[in-house]
Amino acid sequence: MSAVSTPPGPPSAPARRDAEATKAAILKAARHLLARHAHADITLKDVADRAGVSAPLVLKYFGNKESLFARVMSFDTDAAALLAAPLDDLGRHMVRHVLESQRDRGADPLLRIVFAPLHGDHGDVLRANFRAHVVDSLAARLTGPDPDLRAELAVAQLIGLGVMYGIARGPRLRDATITDIADRYGPAVQTQLTP
Amino acid sequence: MSAVSTPPGPPSAPARRDAEATKAAILKAARHLLARHAHADITLKDVADRAGVSAPLVLKYFGNKESLFARVMSFDTDAAALLAAPLDDLGRHMVRHVLESQRDRGADPLLRIVFAPLHGDHGDVLRANFRAHVVDSLAARLTGPDPDLRAELAVAQLIGLGVMYGIARGPRLRDATITDIADRYGPAVQTQLTP
Repeated sequence: MSAVSTPPGPPSAPARRDAEATKAAILKAARHLLARHAHADITLKDVADRAGVSAPLVLKYFGNKESLFARVMSFDTDAAALLAAPLDDLGRHMVRHVLESQRDRGADPLLRIVFAPLHGDHGDVLRANFRAHVVDSLAARLTGPDPDLRAELAVAQLIGLGVMYGIARGPRLRDATITDIADRYGPAVQTQLTP
Repeated sequence: MSAVSTPPGPPSAPARRDAEATKAAILKAARHLLARHAHADITLKDVADRAGVSAPLVLKYFGNKESLFARVMSFDTDAAALLAAPLDDLGRHMVRHVLESQRDRGADPLLRIVFAPLHGDHGDVLRANFRAHVVDSLAARLTGPDPDLRAELAVAQLIGLGVMYGIARGPRLRDATITDIADRYGPAVQTQLTP
């Protein structure tokens, strides 16, 4: 069977990957612009130009500017991957997840919160989503006293790791293996989770 | 003796305090602008206007724009205060120092590093100073294996604490006493210092 006669059907795996890559490029462009310009000053065309796609394609995938920006301001899918481990191994898992995300994508699921001051009024949307999607989701997993405070402190450790890797670009951290760092840093995070 | 007849001499304590407050206001204004605009786009007058002083006063205290910005990009005086404790109590001290700085000044000695991506080429100056003044100074205090990596990980924890307090504005962290957080978070930092 030649490629030309491929029957219509669900998108092939490569096509799905292309769509995912395009969506990721659009989100990345929107995050870049939102970290540097006021919300009101950014147009869909700005986002499309930066992502190297057409404005109608942005509309196809994300509906409109507000829904695209709401997606950029959300942490919910990021938090799901961050928290996807049993509680007694969650410290190490979260450390690995932050470092793997930094190494493979040049960003991690938590790092966007550090740019909240640049978003003006929308910074509070980012903060509220961060608390609800990340901190509160983690706190809900914890038992014992002060789960909300312990969740904040555990997440603080993870944010700091991402800043040291991705922003301060600590050379020793970047040269170390992820397993080494998980061994060194994971127990400190775990102490907040299961003291 | 009336105030009018006060003989010339070194500045009085109130005058020194005024000068220190003015210098602090100028540095704060320069940091604010450098976090939001390209280095080349900022004038001394912009800094003076934001600080509520005259441009000649900025020149009097800091010489010129380059020396003012070099000062803003430096961490050396901040690092001295951060590291001013015996090694066996340094984890708790650094946690207290970050939180007291956040509470009293709305900023901490490390947090500026998170804005490195906004400084363009000057971001690398900020990173290099951060490593030399903070991470290397801490590493020089440590004994045992991998002091540079352990210093990066300890500093990562402190950065994260400052982001959670000052940027994400974690409500439980902000409501807790500094002593409570030093008791909870200090030992995790100390583990990197004296494992």
